[in-house]
Amino acid sequence: MKRRQLVKGISAFGAAAASGTLPNPAIAKGARELSLVTTWPRDFSGLGTGAARFARRVTEMSAGSLRIKLFAGGELVPTFRTFEAVSAGQADLYHAFEYYWQAKSKAFNFFASVPFGMTATEMSAWINHGGGQELWDTLSAGYNLKPLMAGNTGVQMGGWYNKEIKRLADMRGLKVRMPGLGGEVLRRIGAKGVALPAGQILSAMKSGKIDGTEWFGPWNDLALGLHEVADYYYYPGFHEPGTTIAIAVNLDVWKGLSGEHRAILRSAAATENDVTFGEFNARNNQALETLTKRHGVKLRRFPSSVLNAVGTAAGQVVRAAGRSDAVSSKVYDSFIAFRHRSIAWSKLSDQAFWNARLLPFKYKR
Amino acid sequence: MKRRQLVKGISAFGAAAASGTLPNPAIAKGARELSLVTTWPRDFSGLGTGAARFARRVTEMSAGSLRIKLFAGGELVPTFRTFEAVSAGQADLYHAFEYYWQAKSKAFNFFASVPFGMTATEMSAWINHGGGQELWDTLSAGYNLKPLMAGNTGVQMGGWYNKEIKRLADMRGLKVRMPGLGGEVLRRIGAKGVALPAGQILSAMKSGKIDGTEWFGPWNDLALGLHEVADYYYYPGFHEPGTTIAIAVNLDVWKGLSGEHRAILRSAAATENDVTFGEFNARNNQALETLTKRHGVKLRRFPSSVLNAVGTAAGQVVRAAGRSDAVSSKVYDSFIAFRHRSIAWSKLSDQAFWNARLLPFKYKR
Repeated sequence: MKRRQLVKGISAFGAAAASGTLPNPAIAKGARELSLVTTWPRDFSGLGTGAARFARRVTEMSAGSLRIKLFAGGELVPTFRTFEAVSAGQADLYHAFEYYWQAKSKAFNFFASVPFGMTATEMSAWINHGGGQELWDTLSAGYNLKPLMAGNTGVQMGGWYNKEIKRLADMRGLKVRMPGLGGEVLRRIGAKGVALPAGQILSAMKSGKIDGTEWFGPWNDLALGLHEVADYYYYPGFHEPGTTIAIAVNLDVWKGLSGEHRAILRSAAATENDVTFGEFNARNNQALETLTKRHGVKLRRFPSSVLNAVGTAAGQVVRAAGRSDAVSSKVYDSFIAFRHRSIAWSKLSDQAFWNARLLPFKYKR
Repeated sequence: MKRRQLVKGISAFGAAAASGTLPNPAIAKGARELSLVTTWPRDFSGLGTGAARFARRVTEMSAGSLRIKLFAGGELVPTFRTFEAVSAGQADLYHAFEYYWQAKSKAFNFFASVPFGMTATEMSAWINHGGGQELWDTLSAGYNLKPLMAGNTGVQMGGWYNKEIKRLADMRGLKVRMPGLGGEVLRRIGAKGVALPAGQILSAMKSGKIDGTEWFGPWNDLALGLHEVADYYYYPGFHEPGTTIAIAVNLDVWKGLSGEHRAILRSAAATENDVTFGEFNARNNQALETLTKRHGVKLRRFPSSVLNAVGTAAGQVVRAAGRSDAVSSKVYDSFIAFRHRSIAWSKLSDQAFWNARLLPFKYKR
């Protein structure tokens, strides 16, 4: 079970294409079929399953007049060519994290997650009601794409470490696998960022080539087997507080669709935004119990001194990304302003409620 | 503006029907039209607007082959007869809070919100991935209804008070308008629950007939004008930590629909579950700023002594509701078990992240 999941985990983010047999459903007369390329294996928890639910939902709602043919990472195009492939029309849609494309523009980071940025619910509020979608449309149109919000991992975990971190100095020189802006943040506080394909994480942790690594959260981390190679499981995942999953449609394809089919794609993606996020929460709940009760994993909160240093570094890294080009700058201004107001509101709402729920009153079962 | 909103607020929850001119769109040949009755005015923030978006989305996705004709509270059937009307087939769907029907079964409370229960994201995880939907289907089928999750208000505010609450003793004898299970909780800690139609809230606060009242959150409370009649705005809203909005379809109608139309209704509702929640968050953000900066509203957290007493009372009240009949008992067991695991996970995820985000580091704009 674990081994099977691990093989999946490896192929998920590796470059090799593991082409399986693909279903070839009979296409209804006059039906349209669109290819959806993902960056993960077909059944990868939350991501592969979310893409599959999206595809099924589109077929159901359109009574088969619009079909989505799903390709796992590497099946139709190389995993890290998905963006170019959909942009150029070699495939019709992709399902991925937008920060994968930060080499094109740093602005893409803000539509996935940035260190100490916003949570899933805040991202949803910003994109649907705070001007985020319009900025995202503008950014992606520059690459011939129409983007849709299609899921969220929720707050990720801070990662697995083989050494206990008791003070900021303990981070100095630690070799940590953390890609993207999070990795930049760690380098600013003295840790060493190590680039490493996902398939090498376990052996690198075992051999001591790295001291720590992030992955997702309890559900995916248990499946990968990280509890077998590390002693401490740290939180919170300041680097990815709510990573949005995106679906993007080739813009020419999008414009050529009927209003009905566009509405179906929009709603199928929006549905998955809620359903995938809920799936991560429900499965993380269960997996956390397994990790702590069955495997005796030691949970640790990053010390406040570390979080403070990370927070300041995150502010600098995120600002630098946000000021890297003209589009990024507009996105950054909107994101930061919304985040600022969101903090004021979350202090009174979710955060205040969750903190109150932990007071020592008796709420008997 | 405020006056107009107020009139809307009153008609929202009053019994009188304010029948407006209803759109009568041309029905495509062979198209199906379903009536949707709500319990609020057409444009009531978040609730009326959410119902309207749902209706529009269904028409778009079905290319007009399925149309939803929206009726505001009281237009087609008396507001508090919506449940019976849809159950009996006098209307096809309703859009409401399920705790309105707690006189039928206390189990309905758990599909809206219960004191110190679960947040919006936890409700979504439980209903979609934790067995909640199956229990809800069973409960509602007993009334010839098929229920769908279709929105959330998020954590509500604790309410407006004319007296400052510094200790538990200050709650004794306070006359507070808080309906449902929340009102029962307050009575257990010595406050006096006062039943009052929404239309009388403002005058009752002004005259001192009541000392405090809950409503929703900053967005709706600002519109109603509560800041003009009360000095203190309390948080968190322990009584409704994430109130789910439901759409229920007459079960005979549901079974008679094509698979395509059922999938469209499901997805239109699921979309709104995310979009309405995001709208409440985005608008509450803005309204909070208006209330504090323009109107000088004084924000106060309920003292821990009050929250502890309320928490223990909430546990008793919710348990009593959960043990009131056989269906409620099954729902309660599932809800409480999920809530228990959710607390463990939120301590590491959202709650830990939000608390870390408030550390005094510099995250410059």
